[in-house]
Amino acid sequence: MDMLRTAIVGASGYSGEELLRVLLGHPRVEVATIVSRSLEGTPPATALPPLAPLMPPDLAFENLSPGDLAARADLDCVFLALPHGVAAEFAVPLRAAGKVVIDLSADFRLNEAAVYEEFYGTAHPAPELLGEAVYGLPELHRDAIRGAGLIAAPGCYPTSIILGLAPALQAGLIDPATIVANSISGSTGAGRKADARLLLPEVAENLYAYGVPKHRHLSEIEQELSALAGRGVVITFIPHLGPLARGIQTSITANLSKELDQSAAEETYHQRFQGEPFVHVHAAPALPAVKNVVRTNRIELAVRVDPRTRRLLIFACEDNLGKGAATQAVQAMNVRFGLPETEGLPL
Amino acid sequence: MDMLRTAIVGASGYSGEELLRVLLGHPRVEVATIVSRSLEGTPPATALPPLAPLMPPDLAFENLSPGDLAARADLDCVFLALPHGVAAEFAVPLRAAGKVVIDLSADFRLNEAAVYEEFYGTAHPAPELLGEAVYGLPELHRDAIRGAGLIAAPGCYPTSIILGLAPALQAGLIDPATIVANSISGSTGAGRKADARLLLPEVAENLYAYGVPKHRHLSEIEQELSALAGRGVVITFIPHLGPLARGIQTSITANLSKELDQSAAEETYHQRFQGEPFVHVHAAPALPAVKNVVRTNRIELAVRVDPRTRRLLIFACEDNLGKGAATQAVQAMNVRFGLPETEGLPL
Amino acid sequence: MDMLRTAIVGASGYSGEELLRVLLGHPRVEVATIVSRSLEGTPPATALPPLAPLMPPDLAFENLSPGDLAARADLDCVFLALPHGVAAEFAVPLRAAGKVVIDLSADFRLNEAAVYEEFYGTAHPAPELLGEAVYGLPELHRDAIRGAGLIAAPGCYPTSIILGLAPALQAGLIDPATIVANSISGSTGAGRKADARLLLPEVAENLYAYGVPKHRHLSEIEQELSALAGRGVVITFIPHLGPLARGIQTSITANLSKELDQSAAEETYHQRFQGEPFVHVHAAPALPAVKNVVRTNRIELAVRVDPRTRRLLIFACEDNLGKGAATQAVQAMNVRFGLPETEGLPL
Amino acid sequence: MDMLRTAIVGASGYSGEELLRVLLGHPRVEVATIVSRSLEGTPPATALPPLAPLMPPDLAFENLSPGDLAARADLDCVFLALPHGVAAEFAVPLRAAGKVVIDLSADFRLNEAAVYEEFYGTAHPAPELLGEAVYGLPELHRDAIRGAGLIAAPGCYPTSIILGLAPALQAGLIDPATIVANSISGSTGAGRKADARLLLPEVAENLYAYGVPKHRHLSEIEQELSALAGRGVVITFIPHLGPLARGIQTSITANLSKELDQSAAEETYHQRFQGEPFVHVHAAPALPAVKNVVRTNRIELAVRVDPRTRRLLIFACEDNLGKGAATQAVQAMNVRFGLPETEGLPL
Repeated sequence: MDMLRTAIVGASGYSGEELLRVLLGHPRVEVATIVSRSLEGTPPATALPPLAPLMPPDLAFENLSPGDLAARADLDCVFLALPHGVAAEFAVPLRAAGKVVIDLSADFRLNEAAVYEEFYGTAHPAPELLGEAVYGLPELHRDAIRGAGLIAAPGCYPTSIILGLAPALQAGLIDPATIVANSISGSTGAGRKADARLLLPEVAENLYAYGVPKHRHLSEIEQELSALAGRGVVITFIPHLGPLARGIQTSITANLSKELDQSAAEETYHQRFQGEPFVHVHAAPALPAVKNVVRTNRIELAVRVDPRTRRLLIFACEDNLGKGAATQAVQAMNVRFGLPETEGLPL
Repeated sequence: MDMLRTAIVGASGYSGEELLRVLLGHPRVEVATIVSRSLEGTPPATALPPLAPLMPPDLAFENLSPGDLAARADLDCVFLALPHGVAAEFAVPLRAAGKVVIDLSADFRLNEAAVYEEFYGTAHPAPELLGEAVYGLPELHRDAIRGAGLIAAPGCYPTSIILGLAPALQAGLIDPATIVANSISGSTGAGRKADARLLLPEVAENLYAYGVPKHRHLSEIEQELSALAGRGVVITFIPHLGPLARGIQTSITANLSKELDQSAAEETYHQRFQGEPFVHVHAAPALPAVKNVVRTNRIELAVRVDPRTRRLLIFACEDNLGKGAATQAVQAMNVRFGLPETEGLPL
Repeated sequence: MDMLRTAIVGASGYSGEELLRVLLGHPRVEVATIVSRSLEGTPPATALPPLAPLMPPDLAFENLSPGDLAARADLDCVFLALPHGVAAEFAVPLRAAGKVVIDLSADFRLNEAAVYEEFYGTAHPAPELLGEAVYGLPELHRDAIRGAGLIAAPGCYPTSIILGLAPALQAGLIDPATIVANSISGSTGAGRKADARLLLPEVAENLYAYGVPKHRHLSEIEQELSALAGRGVVITFIPHLGPLARGIQTSITANLSKELDQSAAEETYHQRFQGEPFVHVHAAPALPAVKNVVRTNRIELAVRVDPRTRRLLIFACEDNLGKGAATQAVQAMNVRFGLPETEGLPL
Repeated sequence: MDMLRTAIVGASGYSGEELLRVLLGHPRVEVATIVSRSLEGTPPATALPPLAPLMPPDLAFENLSPGDLAARADLDCVFLALPHGVAAEFAVPLRAAGKVVIDLSADFRLNEAAVYEEFYGTAHPAPELLGEAVYGLPELHRDAIRGAGLIAAPGCYPTSIILGLAPALQAGLIDPATIVANSISGSTGAGRKADARLLLPEVAENLYAYGVPKHRHLSEIEQELSALAGRGVVITFIPHLGPLARGIQTSITANLSKELDQSAAEETYHQRFQGEPFVHVHAAPALPAVKNVVRTNRIELAVRVDPRTRRLLIFACEDNLGKGAATQAVQAMNVRFGLPETEGLPL
């Protein structure tokens, strides 16, 4: 059995660490190198103690330039866990060298450079690659991922909102102009950065909305929802930071566009995700809970028809570092390289 | 200076304990008795250690029947921190005996017994008192509270939603048919009850929606919003339980019913609550945070106009045991008895 | 490859749930039945949602009597995750029927029935089995476990204290009469029981000592330490409940009984646990942290020589539900049945 | 009634914020200025939102040099909430100008400059002031504080350990050579600094020892314990960081030096602290808990005689920002300026 040879660039962040954890345990993957400027010279077991027992003795952080990394002949697949903008600097030479790139940043999630510029405030760093990039949500784009050279792993909030709405939009159950999505994220979502506003005493026993009314993730959310609805979709999205480390809870409402009862709504969702190993649709009265999905690649969904308001209520829970980032990227890798889709992934 | 002589019935719950804390420190109040069946015979300092240093040596839990309590000549005002249904058993004889009653349960919040029965699933226990009961939200019903014999302290979620929407509805800024409210509550909101689903390992690092689509609090929310809008209002309300002890964060959206920019929206809110000592309206870009208001009687609000969706976004944070329950009840007491409204209350 | 056929009795508690999680993922184990009186009739996926995706469709909670369970011919190994006293009721017929029993309760940890009675306040329920029972700490009793029919999985606190002290006592580094152990446990250690004192608002942002000066776990701790020291050992043990769900941190001090420097102390510990897959001894300046070991079967240790006081300081971290309970029980099962010791266990 | 005119230098840290909260609510104090280099120009209500409603409209952060502050004629008392070393830079000119200085740093807690150098690693910045500095623990040094010009507010850990041991040492109950103290602190104890190791995901669900075997606080602890014992005392002190924002729990053991039963031990503690408004000694079986004392100036104590080991066990809980820092500094201010000792302080 051949092993896939992979690299992780940016292994010091929360998504990078989670990616490393999963890849080190993946039976078909070898982690050939981990690239980190800040951790060069630090033994990985010291930098990331929870991963110490999984770490091969010869694995060390390297500080490789994009060019040097692209020149390595031994890599099949490179994961980029870097800030947007920086990711593109690596993606360009890696793609030129023919490596498969799975990027966890926002750099290649949008089809249009102009939308990137509108939401990220700078010109797109590599617009020539947008055409080949595939949005890495296997439940929507499995076939395209199979042949992709550049896979853009979705954002954490977008995963929960897009998968939550996909069945309703595809089946025409709701009016896309009335969508309101509220999400609460654990604080790993803000990244592992030295910021006094994210210290435990600031975040514990606290909860607040932020990033309204135009959070960056709206760009990829609306792109994907528009494709699902077959028309332009603009939504309200309100993200919140909550006093937990990991997890996202999303609650979505939209006006029903047709008569629908609870069992028909559930049935639509069950059918849409039948056979999807990582999507679980609860039957009422059960509702998703973050605790059920933390440290997994699962997303849990539930729907409720509210006859009082004639709205559909949709609930989704996922791990922002799991299905919302690192493990979803590995799921995409499995798809891309023809491995069993659940291989090496926590259910 | 005369002291108001008060009693608390149900001091063993979270709201009751908070009420006791505030009343023990209130310069114009004497706590004449605390009634608790379960804690009779337990020294208050043992039952409620954080309150030990505030506790007068002669204060003890008494197990008084409604009739015995009503017969006590030395009480001016009785607080009921009891489950709905049980509260009415005390309210009836207390009102017959002429005591001012401030009830923290849901028993007297609704104008119509039929709505109570619809939402609470049993016939109203004392419909004859509904006519005299006043909904105890001072920012809306200050004058009525001044003359009231029976004050129904609002629910925790309703306080945040009603105050959050009041300016917009009164000024006609939004379409009431499009209101969607999402709230996250700390777990004291579920009460101090022996329930294994509320243990720390179940709630910490967890977050989930519940009580959808027809939570009981909708009954009082829609009653008050309808009065504010001058027409029947039905809304979507999604409550969530979050991994914190205290606090409520509420995010509300509604379609704008007129052209409006951010500064006009803020101005409407600032004017509506000008002079209100316990309502703080943030100027953008600031947003409310639970941490700012925990252990206070304050509610923080903010509004955002979203030109992309032509919606108004409204944010509110309060302490579910403070402005959402106990301290708001004391604020109503201050109003009722002509004391300075901020007397004895944490800002 | 033959599969070991196992049963779990008491799968509704925290240890039982963790045991079920690990056994469901163990490549050499089949969970033939899960016994729970309280959950009979509840679908396992509903009772334990985080385990839903791992659950075989035909697995259901059964309410089996000790005799009925013992009569089942298809079981190789039965795990008892029950309160002390109740465990013995199952162990007796199971042993009579020749099943291997791994008991997570305290019923068979002590060699002497009189000590059980002293610490647990009742006569031992099955003293005739004490002779064959083996204390299931593989790092100390691996050989005895290999042939055992009745394995008593160690308590959570004892695991950290006994493994923490074993090298020092065996090498004669410290005076056993001077041992003081302080431990802080996550609140799963108190069990999944409906107790209002363990609600999140009571435990979060709180921390306190309890169970002093004679916690029940002292009985097994002192039994094992005495065996290691070759003389009777009596220690001070102070347990604390902390605001976390899982994990134990233990700090131990004892007077040095000989001249010793830091590197010699570390070397003693490294040598003692060389080759142990689940014991990690940190080199100074690193110290154990709960975060590193939660959800694993690992225990982390560190030692410090304090020249100012001529004491040895010993630090240990483990997951109270992992190495302190469920996964350690599975480690013992692996040893007992000749499987690779790390099989199916999280490193 | 004259108002005390005060300044706070370093109001942006956790102790400084807490100090500001208490002084703004103190009926006999006016906060004349708040000095912060980093917050100059930021409205205090924006920098510290929870304090917004208490903030006088004309209070602003000023960036004053030590000399400029010392030159202000309108100040009676200056609080320094600064890192050690920096505090002395302000203390010198302030004392030269005759201001009363209450320093929350470690700069003036030690009687001997050599001990400072040993534990803090640099020469003492103002050894000439050590002679006049008083260790600001009112329960031990009330008389000296009354006449002091320079008061060194004790460290957080030392407060719990020194008050916990004072009765036992003064009454000769224990052998001072056998003292072992274990403390767990909330993470505000590490300060409000941008450090990725203190982010919520690093600290929540985590717990670890640090700073062993020679934490800086040992210097002041041993100084005060030696004075109490009348001989040189060297102890073991193990600090831990726990997953809570505020609070310290300390557990201490020492060998009994005489026959003693539980009631005699309790009686010694009760008598020693009789009349102390901020020290509560629990009667067995009650034990201190962090939750009881957070946001107060109280310390709770309990003692247990362990007949098995002939040791005394001592337990203490306090708020590290309250009795362990800010409110204790205000208590010292009350003593120094002849105000009622409990004035303006949370019980």
